[in-house]
Amino acid sequence: MEDKVIVQAKALNAFCVNVFEKLDVPTAHAKVTADVLVEADLRGIDSHGVARLRRYVKGLQDGVMLAHPKEKTVKETATTALIDAGAGLGQPVSDRAMKLSIEKAKKYGTGFVTVRNSNHYGIAGYYAMMALKHDMIGMSMTNADVLVVPTFGRHAVLGTNPIAVAVPTGQERPFVLDMATSTVPRGKLEVYDRLEKEVPLGWATDEKGVPTTDAHRVLDNFVARRGGGLLPLGGAGELFSGHKGYGLALLVDILSAVLPGAAYADTVYPKTPQGKPLPANLGHFFGTNSVEAFRPIDGFKSTMDELICRLKNSPKAEEATRIYIHGEKEYEETERRTKDGIPLDAKVEADLRAISRELNVKYDL
Amino acid sequence: MEDKVIVQAKALNAFCVNVFEKLDVPTAHAKVTADVLVEADLRGIDSHGVARLRRYVKGLQDGVMLAHPKEKTVKETATTALIDAGAGLGQPVSDRAMKLSIEKAKKYGTGFVTVRNSNHYGIAGYYAMMALKHDMIGMSMTNADVLVVPTFGRHAVLGTNPIAVAVPTGQERPFVLDMATSTVPRGKLEVYDRLEKEVPLGWATDEKGVPTTDAHRVLDNFVARRGGGLLPLGGAGELFSGHKGYGLALLVDILSAVLPGAAYADTVYPKTPQGKPLPANLGHFFGTNSVEAFRPIDGFKSTMDELICRLKNSPKAEEATRIYIHGEKEYEETERRTKDGIPLDAKVEADLRAISRELNVKYDL
Repeated sequence: MEDKVIVQAKALNAFCVNVFEKLDVPTAHAKVTADVLVEADLRGIDSHGVARLRRYVKGLQDGVMLAHPKEKTVKETATTALIDAGAGLGQPVSDRAMKLSIEKAKKYGTGFVTVRNSNHYGIAGYYAMMALKHDMIGMSMTNADVLVVPTFGRHAVLGTNPIAVAVPTGQERPFVLDMATSTVPRGKLEVYDRLEKEVPLGWATDEKGVPTTDAHRVLDNFVARRGGGLLPLGGAGELFSGHKGYGLALLVDILSAVLPGAAYADTVYPKTPQGKPLPANLGHFFGTNSVEAFRPIDGFKSTMDELICRLKNSPKAEEATRIYIHGEKEYEETERRTKDGIPLDAKVEADLRAISRELNVKYDL
Repeated sequence: MEDKVIVQAKALNAFCVNVFEKLDVPTAHAKVTADVLVEADLRGIDSHGVARLRRYVKGLQDGVMLAHPKEKTVKETATTALIDAGAGLGQPVSDRAMKLSIEKAKKYGTGFVTVRNSNHYGIAGYYAMMALKHDMIGMSMTNADVLVVPTFGRHAVLGTNPIAVAVPTGQERPFVLDMATSTVPRGKLEVYDRLEKEVPLGWATDEKGVPTTDAHRVLDNFVARRGGGLLPLGGAGELFSGHKGYGLALLVDILSAVLPGAAYADTVYPKTPQGKPLPANLGHFFGTNSVEAFRPIDGFKSTMDELICRLKNSPKAEEATRIYIHGEKEYEETERRTKDGIPLDAKVEADLRAISRELNVKYDL
């Protein structure tokens, strides 16, 4: 077990808001961005929480993320919109885009909003879940940094391109699918590397495109751009249907990057010929579907509850004790961490303190 | 290599139309149903082609599939519709539903149509691909017969619930993802069983919910309803993210069954207390998204071509020679089989002849 420092969500959120404000981000945008980060920590998705604060700080300082972007709606119809994020933070524009898709779905049954020229938007599930309080089905996708090797490929060409869908329920907790389309995220390799453990064959490939158990080598290859990377859901080749995970990753790239005209595949995070980073030009895809357009919400919610109970109450595999519904673990973790605090990695917590000193922002966690 | 009989698509299609007509299916519906079946054979998805003709014949004879269903549009808005298929064949209602979703997308940017009280609709990709000639993005999903075990479960509760998405391109072949959300379909186990080969661990579980290499046992357990079944994409447990495949299967069940109010999870294909089959009450989900709502179609198509070339031209893994785009193999197979004929399994061909004799339909393949 690595060293942990317990912090409270509210204080952590306030600290992040102050950091963003100090970097000239308008208060409303600072709040949304802090919310998305701390929500990840509350849900137990530590890789996407304040562990990433440094990257946002650096992005704002380097000017690849703009505190005052010239965001604009490029195209809009009754049910669709395309927003250019102007190289701003990914979270505020995504919050606005998802709200817009919800408004459209309220009026017209469905709403789809795509975003281009954006940055890392945090956890995909955050935006999908925004539809829940309106009793609608929410969807969110994004392309991402290049880490995933296509089936039969040698080099990473796609991102871990997540898909998130949230569906309202009655008595049961909402269904919240929030999944990278790779078998595992990069962070999982980092954990195994720190513990000096072999990773299972099927998570990643070496620089020749051959499956490997050597996490350190894969991570090292990323840094040196030697080739290889994470495998899509289903693993290497077609034996366990890795081509399906690859297909899902590609689909996300199409909907969230090609459709809005953002950078796609391995053209994201461009650099100048001198190696200076330019804005990432990521793209996102947000969708909302009204349930009431198809059937009354109460009946839908009761059926969702029945479906969930049917799955959870079905017999368990030998040595298994519980069948989960997607989002359930994260809801339980949120309850635990809201009550007991968020166990931050000691290194992450030390970096927050470093940021506090560098930016002269009060650290009171 | 099993015995094959070469038949021509056109003659096969005509035979299927005659069979359906003989069973009192109206000509227009007979044509669509035959088209969907033969298209599967052309694309090389033999499990979903005329190998299933017997099941449709039996379904129509038993009255669980109606030749003259009372199909009706239960609810409709500008962008959405819900159709009750009246226990008719899955193909004609799905063809109509997808056309309706395309019409809506032409007018309003997006269109979603769900169907309940339906039957097996053939290959999911057929309907998604209908959007291509309108330069739109098509989507199709359905729930299906109960074969898939949820993560940590012992019994199959979900179907192989496929997801199909088709995206238009310029010079390159369209992107057509058409994937079951299980690691492999049941048919793959049947092939291994015939060859008396062990299946890889990660495809299926035994009756205790434990991964097994014994295909025969899994198939036998299906018949005897002893438990176990196919594993979701990603395999058993969470090590290779089987919970993601399970989540996708569940998502398809929600969108195609819970949303229209069809039978969901393992409530599909109900029977009377005496064991007599009742209509399957399957549900489908069709969607169309206009590209032009976001960006001009020409630019979109060029970018799709660039993305595809980028992937295909990227370096290959050791011992690999080619990176595929989804749908590519099926387009090539269609070209081959259109030219050289469809190699039907000898047993399947013998059954077609048996159907011809039983129904007194001319067999001239």
